[in-house]
Amino acid sequence: MWDATPVVESPIMESSNVVPGVTLVGGGPGAWDLITVRGANALREADVILTDHLGPTDQLDRLIDVAGKEIIDVSKLPYERQVTQERTNELIVEHARAGKKVVRLKGGDPYVFGRGFEELQVCREAGIPCDVVPGVTSAVSVPGAAGVPITQRGVVHSFTVVSGHLPPGHRSSLVDWSALAQTGGTISVIMGVRHVRAIADALMAAGLGAGTPAAIIQEGTTAGQRSFRCTLGTLADTMAAEDVQAPAVYVIGEVAGL
Amino acid sequence: MWDATPVVESPIMESSNVVPGVTLVGGGPGAWDLITVRGANALREADVILTDHLGPTDQLDRLIDVAGKEIIDVSKLPYERQVTQERTNELIVEHARAGKKVVRLKGGDPYVFGRGFEELQVCREAGIPCDVVPGVTSAVSVPGAAGVPITQRGVVHSFTVVSGHLPPGHRSSLVDWSALAQTGGTISVIMGVRHVRAIADALMAAGLGAGTPAAIIQEGTTAGQRSFRCTLGTLADTMAAEDVQAPAVYVIGEVAGL
Repeated sequence: MWDATPVVESPIMESSNVVPGVTLVGGGPGAWDLITVRGANALREADVILTDHLGPTDQLDRLIDVAGKEIIDVSKLPYERQVTQERTNELIVEHARAGKKVVRLKGGDPYVFGRGFEELQVCREAGIPCDVVPGVTSAVSVPGAAGVPITQRGVVHSFTVVSGHLPPGHRSSLVDWSALAQTGGTISVIMGVRHVRAIADALMAAGLGAGTPAAIIQEGTTAGQRSFRCTLGTLADTMAAEDVQAPAVYVIGEVAGL
Repeated sequence: MWDATPVVESPIMESSNVVPGVTLVGGGPGAWDLITVRGANALREADVILTDHLGPTDQLDRLIDVAGKEIIDVSKLPYERQVTQERTNELIVEHARAGKKVVRLKGGDPYVFGRGFEELQVCREAGIPCDVVPGVTSAVSVPGAAGVPITQRGVVHSFTVVSGHLPPGHRSSLVDWSALAQTGGTISVIMGVRHVRAIADALMAAGLGAGTPAAIIQEGTTAGQRSFRCTLGTLADTMAAEDVQAPAVYVIGEVAGL
């Protein structure tokens, strides 16, 4: 095992906006070295690190000397989803109130479907200083790792990142998939493995051609990365045939054919 | 001045996917420590660094020991835009062919309106190995730095990043702004200072309410950061009154009011 080396020496910390209290850190798409320098510094300074199964959790020892730090994997707490977030919030507050420097390490960027703002509000309500360190979002970087640029000059001037955790038409859905099909931009879907068929059908029903290029990337930027090129019309079947599992991103648009 | 310290020791480089040849590095939104660890490592290993005015260019000496490296600011070459990109491409290839490790340091993420894919193609056509290191995109992180989460559970399930370099209706525009107004998601506009009034008018004409919250952030994450809250209806006037200059991002959607 590699002997951990400080990422940046201490004097720099003063200027890097990492405050005492709680720091919500975007860990990036998965590869250990796709966290930001500021994020790595925050991890290094932390007493307690609350992680989940995303981001560089499996390889923290490549970023920092983990000895002496308390590392809590909140994704493995024996509760269902809603309770887990509440318990996560409690753990953040409890450790911060105990005078510990707390890092909440999240996958991707804390504000991209990451509940970062909720955790920030919890800290504010508890009177605990909280800083947010942005991260490389999976919605852009995972396609990139598979050779798919989310934009390309002359091809597309916009892209939409959408959560596929609810199917189109679900009463709690806040997405107008018909409008999305018409923007002219790339569509990057995260958390959309389960509902891929309903999503593809909705986009085609709204006029997006079945021949529109698509790409699927599972566990992007990690050693387990798998990627597949297909079309919007074959997207759901391809994912089924290849047994694509979360975490995965799929991209729909001309850039997937470049 | 701070005495530069290696970000990560050499053994780690082997696994960080930084290949010889050319590395396109996303430098993040502006703050020196919002580049990724991999990106910082690539800079450290580089012989030649081609920068522009975005990303951490002004503070490279906080990331690496710049002595002995050739740093070329391609944004200051005395040519107009189109020629500059061609000349940038030439410089990348020339230095790589001379056996130098070349980093092309870009603002944000190389694939988010960054011409990263074009530069990758130039390298491939020249037979030069080229790797791409993703970056923290300004479209997400700059709003975040001003306290605006690009998504929030229960409020929005999607966001669209759009380039505002062409006004709505321009013959070369690839954006359907009417559809964009209807997606139900947050809209983050980059490179949209000049055409803000036309963009806001198009969105309102398509049904997005004048009272929709908006936020403007100039030079986000840097010492020069300025931010303003307003509404879609007052967006253009606010930018004019506050003399907002590029680089700036503006966000339209309920999250701007949180």
